[in-house]
Amino acid sequence: MLLHLSTWLEVEAYLEHSQGVIMPIGSTEQHGPTGLIGTDAICAEAIAKGVGEATQALVAPTINIGMALHHTAFPGSMSLRPSTMIQVVKEYVTCLAKARFTKFFFINGHGGNIATLKAAFSETYAHLADLNLPHADNVKCYLGNWFMCGSVYQLAKELYGDKEGSHATPSEVALTQYVYPEAIKQAPLSPEVGRGYKIYGAEDFRRRYPDGRMGSDPALATPEHGKQFYELAVKELSHTYLEFVNGE
Amino acid sequence: MLLHLSTWLEVEAYLEHSQGVIMPIGSTEQHGPTGLIGTDAICAEAIAKGVGEATQALVAPTINIGMALHHTAFPGSMSLRPSTMIQVVKEYVTCLAKARFTKFFFINGHGGNIATLKAAFSETYAHLADLNLPHADNVKCYLGNWFMCGSVYQLAKELYGDKEGSHATPSEVALTQYVYPEAIKQAPLSPEVGRGYKIYGAEDFRRRYPDGRMGSDPALATPEHGKQFYELAVKELSHTYLEFVNGE
Amino acid sequence: MLLHLSTWLEVEAYLEHSQGVIMPIGSTEQHGPTGLIGTDAICAEAIAKGVGEATQALVAPTINIGMALHHTAFPGSMSLRPSTMIQVVKEYVTCLAKARFTKFFFINGHGGNIATLKAAFSETYAHLADLNLPHADNVKCYLGNWFMCGSVYQLAKELYGDKEGSHATPSEVALTQYVYPEAIKQAPLSPEVGRGYKIYGAEDFRRRYPDGRMGSDPALATPEHGKQFYELAVKELSHTYLEFVNGE
Amino acid sequence: MLLHLSTWLEVEAYLEHSQGVIMPIGSTEQHGPTGLIGTDAICAEAIAKGVGEATQALVAPTINIGMALHHTAFPGSMSLRPSTMIQVVKEYVTCLAKARFTKFFFINGHGGNIATLKAAFSETYAHLADLNLPHADNVKCYLGNWFMCGSVYQLAKELYGDKEGSHATPSEVALTQYVYPEAIKQAPLSPEVGRGYKIYGAEDFRRRYPDGRMGSDPALATPEHGKQFYELAVKELSHTYLEFVNGE
Amino acid sequence: MLLHLSTWLEVEAYLEHSQGVIMPIGSTEQHGPTGLIGTDAICAEAIAKGVGEATQALVAPTINIGMALHHTAFPGSMSLRPSTMIQVVKEYVTCLAKARFTKFFFINGHGGNIATLKAAFSETYAHLADLNLPHADNVKCYLGNWFMCGSVYQLAKELYGDKEGSHATPSEVALTQYVYPEAIKQAPLSPEVGRGYKIYGAEDFRRRYPDGRMGSDPALATPEHGKQFYELAVKELSHTYLEFVNGE
Amino acid sequence: MLLHLSTWLEVEAYLEHSQGVIMPIGSTEQHGPTGLIGTDAICAEAIAKGVGEATQALVAPTINIGMALHHTAFPGSMSLRPSTMIQVVKEYVTCLAKARFTKFFFINGHGGNIATLKAAFSETYAHLADLNLPHADNVKCYLGNWFMCGSVYQLAKELYGDKEGSHATPSEVALTQYVYPEAIKQAPLSPEVGRGYKIYGAEDFRRRYPDGRMGSDPALATPEHGKQFYELAVKELSHTYLEFVNGE
Ligand code: NI
Ligand code: NI
Ligand code: NI
Ligand code: NI
Ligand code: NI
Ligand code: NI
Repeated sequence: MLLHLSTWLEVEAYLEHSQGVIMPIGSTEQHGPTGLIGTDAICAEAIAKGVGEATQALVAPTINIGMALHHTAFPGSMSLRPSTMIQVVKEYVTCLAKARFTKFFFINGHGGNIATLKAAFSETYAHLADLNLPHADNVKCYLGNWFMCGSVYQLAKELYGDKEGSHATPSEVALTQYVYPEAIKQAPLSPEVGRGYKIYGAEDFRRRYPDGRMGSDPALATPEHGKQFYELAVKELSHTYLEFVNGE
Repeated sequence: MLLHLSTWLEVEAYLEHSQGVIMPIGSTEQHGPTGLIGTDAICAEAIAKGVGEATQALVAPTINIGMALHHTAFPGSMSLRPSTMIQVVKEYVTCLAKARFTKFFFINGHGGNIATLKAAFSETYAHLADLNLPHADNVKCYLGNWFMCGSVYQLAKELYGDKEGSHATPSEVALTQYVYPEAIKQAPLSPEVGRGYKIYGAEDFRRRYPDGRMGSDPALATPEHGKQFYELAVKELSHTYLEFVNGE
Repeated sequence: MLLHLSTWLEVEAYLEHSQGVIMPIGSTEQHGPTGLIGTDAICAEAIAKGVGEATQALVAPTINIGMALHHTAFPGSMSLRPSTMIQVVKEYVTCLAKARFTKFFFINGHGGNIATLKAAFSETYAHLADLNLPHADNVKCYLGNWFMCGSVYQLAKELYGDKEGSHATPSEVALTQYVYPEAIKQAPLSPEVGRGYKIYGAEDFRRRYPDGRMGSDPALATPEHGKQFYELAVKELSHTYLEFVNGE
Repeated sequence: MLLHLSTWLEVEAYLEHSQGVIMPIGSTEQHGPTGLIGTDAICAEAIAKGVGEATQALVAPTINIGMALHHTAFPGSMSLRPSTMIQVVKEYVTCLAKARFTKFFFINGHGGNIATLKAAFSETYAHLADLNLPHADNVKCYLGNWFMCGSVYQLAKELYGDKEGSHATPSEVALTQYVYPEAIKQAPLSPEVGRGYKIYGAEDFRRRYPDGRMGSDPALATPEHGKQFYELAVKELSHTYLEFVNGE
Repeated sequence: MLLHLSTWLEVEAYLEHSQGVIMPIGSTEQHGPTGLIGTDAICAEAIAKGVGEATQALVAPTINIGMALHHTAFPGSMSLRPSTMIQVVKEYVTCLAKARFTKFFFINGHGGNIATLKAAFSETYAHLADLNLPHADNVKCYLGNWFMCGSVYQLAKELYGDKEGSHATPSEVALTQYVYPEAIKQAPLSPEVGRGYKIYGAEDFRRRYPDGRMGSDPALATPEHGKQFYELAVKELSHTYLEFVNGE
Repeated sequence: MLLHLSTWLEVEAYLEHSQGVIMPIGSTEQHGPTGLIGTDAICAEAIAKGVGEATQALVAPTINIGMALHHTAFPGSMSLRPSTMIQVVKEYVTCLAKARFTKFFFINGHGGNIATLKAAFSETYAHLADLNLPHADNVKCYLGNWFMCGSVYQLAKELYGDKEGSHATPSEVALTQYVYPEAIKQAPLSPEVGRGYKIYGAEDFRRRYPDGRMGSDPALATPEHGKQFYELAVKELSHTYLEFVNGE
């Protein structure tokens, strides 16, 4: 059940039996010469819809743009500053918490969002308490990174070994190929690829990782792999969602 | 050309011949008993894609959640505060302006966004000047409200007269029916509908407009009407976009 | 009744029979070679005092400086950023709302304030609700732009036709001449005047409108015209104020 | 020379020979049973105009509303929070500093503004440096509190002794009587008056100072005293302004 | 009783008989060629501990970094902007106020903190009221500047006359020598020292005060003097603390 | 070399040969019935001093108060909101970066700080780039959590097994016992201890972890263990610091 394709009456009815909602969050940032700029949002959204179907859960609209400041030296990348993203997440959750939602299950497609999301959750709990909302202290946010699912991680290792890398990975590229087969890209990928440098500012990042990839070989990706990743992630996160929403 | 389905190399190539980008912006808010909560984002996104195809322009990801504080007494509605939305728009535009984009064409689906968007544009111009960006003073934002296109407005009047109303209108509902025929909703619509009250806070809004509609009869909407609205809006806004982007 | 010339005991007594207050808001910005920098504040203040007298309403101090970032390439112009102005308006209204005022009637002299004021109203309603103030949901803000009064608009068209322009207009200059006859300015006005360009950043504005006027011929203004504009605006806005304050 | 009654061409000419500007700042807050709510702004504005005339200096519009949170339990009082006031002062000074003003002479009528103004000056200097404005490091703000002028203080002691008190004082009331003789108020003043308590929050303030006065007897004020205070303050602050603006 | 060396159970027990807490605040900024960068924090912390022992009061951790923007042209100086420091102080006090503390006794070692601290207190009182905390209106903050204690001031005058100066003073240097005898520094001090200039921006400050001292001769300091200053300040502030915390 | 015990001339000399600085950061929060509220700051500070001595590095003052909102239902706990902490870290780093420091080595004692610190680093890099500082793109922040050092972790497992827990752990308590043997606390510890619940808001945390411990048995701690932890952490982090500061 997609929030965007529902009416408020349907949401009101949904709230009678569940206070859980899935919040997909991605990013809009370079993903190497062949990866889509929307990769992280596409993956999060596809998996979130899959989890929503599997669990009858409500799925909110995808947060397309996350914390990707370190990618902004590549054209087409967009980012919020962390403190703005905290504010955004806080306001989204607050609107829904006022309507009696209490369990917020974030399905995240971008490693760069993790720290800021965790910070946002802390800030949100305190904000809700300050508003004196009834049940403020029952609001809970869960961070589910699809690419860190055990089953996903294992398959990526099997298929790609250390060519999985850590950005513009074949696993995420494969998933976008499965979702958007019409947007599979071809471009020369130099065999040498930046690897092992830490992430600091945007200019430094581009110096270290000149084509945007971090140790990955996305040429290994196939849509069939993508389908496998999709199914593993949906299965694992559906299980996690149900535990979360049915938990105390 | 959708930013989310492009690579950074494609964006770099695009920038060689154009500095224009289309920014769809909608909202996530109640649209009466039968209107989709995502109506404004769905309309903006569909039309933006159409304009992008017609003009070969790049289309950024849709801003799904806008300024809809007055709708937040209905469950499922989400909103940014105006000052947060200003910050968000400023950061989106700044990222792209640093990459040399200068013409930002917002296609907007929600009347409640207009004031905050205009304020955001002003704040953004000043911010870019303060950053000492080269060409900061060439950055221009345009606000194109699809529902205020002359041709759209005229058709709505012809088809619906004063039953068009001003929120949860048959024209916007029709457009969503055209885009998502699988999500056409049925619900009883009382013949009496709130009309003519000004908009203040969220509680007051719900008191005045108890089912969420503002003077409209969305039961008049059909997917065929939606197709007509879509085509008129795409045609008119494509023309406007080209004038804007080719202007001085 | 001017708030600045009242005591708190008088305000307390006033609140026994009315919860309305008039909030004049102008700007401090260039108005062409002969227009006063304070034009918009002078007009708003004069009319607000007139409305206050005609309706026995309390008039708050004039907000002298508004959102005029696009004028700031001309010396003497001052502006708040929109997000700061939102904060300011929110705090002003909140102070008075805590004292039980509920009807805030803004008399505005500057087109550039409109978007930010509307955004500020939305932000304020939500803020008051979050404060859990009793009667927060009865607070209402009205935006009355004197220059958009029907009677004012019609007279300006009659007197000046398209030489009214849209900034540093003869109508507003006339009104300042009526209020401050000792400050009528003379300066050469080139017959060619910028016209028809949209407003973006401050540098761009000055390039398009090199002497600050937007399509206007303020040399047509006379203090007698100013008196007429004043009287029309006071009459029309007094009527509107009473409707607003006596409305549900 | 009042900024509000000048044109931008006049300001441009003024900047050829002076970079100084007078910034009056007051407050909008209760001043006891007989003192005007606008007392602090009225005093600051009147004296600023006097100093402007005496020194040929430009006078900016009065900041009517300052930091008066502790007075807000009395109806009609308005206040900015300190952090908002810092932002406001910073933006005002920045606009003028970009136009080449460097010497900002604040004439202040409210003790409660002092701390926040000093904080605002510090924040502004750092902000201007961060903007990389040429001459940012020559910008200087001066805080001139009229009620702390040596000559004013001495006269108040002579006329009123310890009945001067520290809020709603006969000296400031006298000055408003001189400026607005038509607004001299009468109300019973209990012989017992709060005295000697420190200032904390608004509710506590009203508990300590139930009629708003702090140890003062404003019934001693006369318009003639007001004229004396006005003249002393104008003379002393004119001297100080010239030293400031002509200093290194 | 140091908060950092206590358990929460001990704090809970403390609250049974006292709601007072001592908040030491210093700065991290240049103190001339021989003064320690931590001078202001060291002095505040040492005296706060002394007062805590003398009065059995709880002492919170020292705020090491304050408002020292004007010193930041000297390497090693650190500062918060005033609006950030306001936020920090507000959040510290709010945490403790929610735990039922009501009397906050700031022992301050840096003149540059005074204005911002006072502003922060005002902002905090209003914030606590907005949170609808029970007893919000009983929260009181006191600003105790050790260097302005009567007894301290008098001794400094006796020992150093006008060589006390106003920054990097022998009195504060002496106190640090008493606390950290192992960190007594030697460096040439030119007999000429900047004196009498007002404080504006950081670049200007360094131009006026090239070695960082303001009119002082810290070579006069001895650890024995430091001991005297310490004892005087502890005695006087202990007395003040008890009056404050036992007051209504 | 401690910044607080240095002069600005010494810092200037230090910068000739190193641009590295150690930034200890802890927290002020409950640590169970026997753990010190300052545990995290005490550990970070002690280790930071040790690393500074071992590597001749400059050590900045300890950030005593971090992100501990979830502990604030226990009296004595203090916290910044994440967005405030981001601002604070940004301003600290910016001050030092303007003085030419480029390598910021944070030694952290509190797991709850990690997310916010990472977010702060990202925000800071972008801020420095916006300031157009020379070498902004060379600024690097490193997050060294002492309790996650491999050698520390291993010893804790050996000594305590799963009684290490995850808050108010015997390892951190041991370290504080080593540093402050005079502040070793005794209190009954129930054999049952909360374990395995995720962290959400403050009220929920206290419900799950009623005495503040998370699965730990701090009664196992001894000062001798503390000495071992201290030495392991200093050794390992000294090595890491040198790699970081000597890296490209
Ligand atoms: Ni990715
Ligand atoms: Ni709509
Ligand atoms: Ni105007
Ligand atoms: Ni006053
Ligand atoms: Ni000092
Ligand atoms: Ni800990």
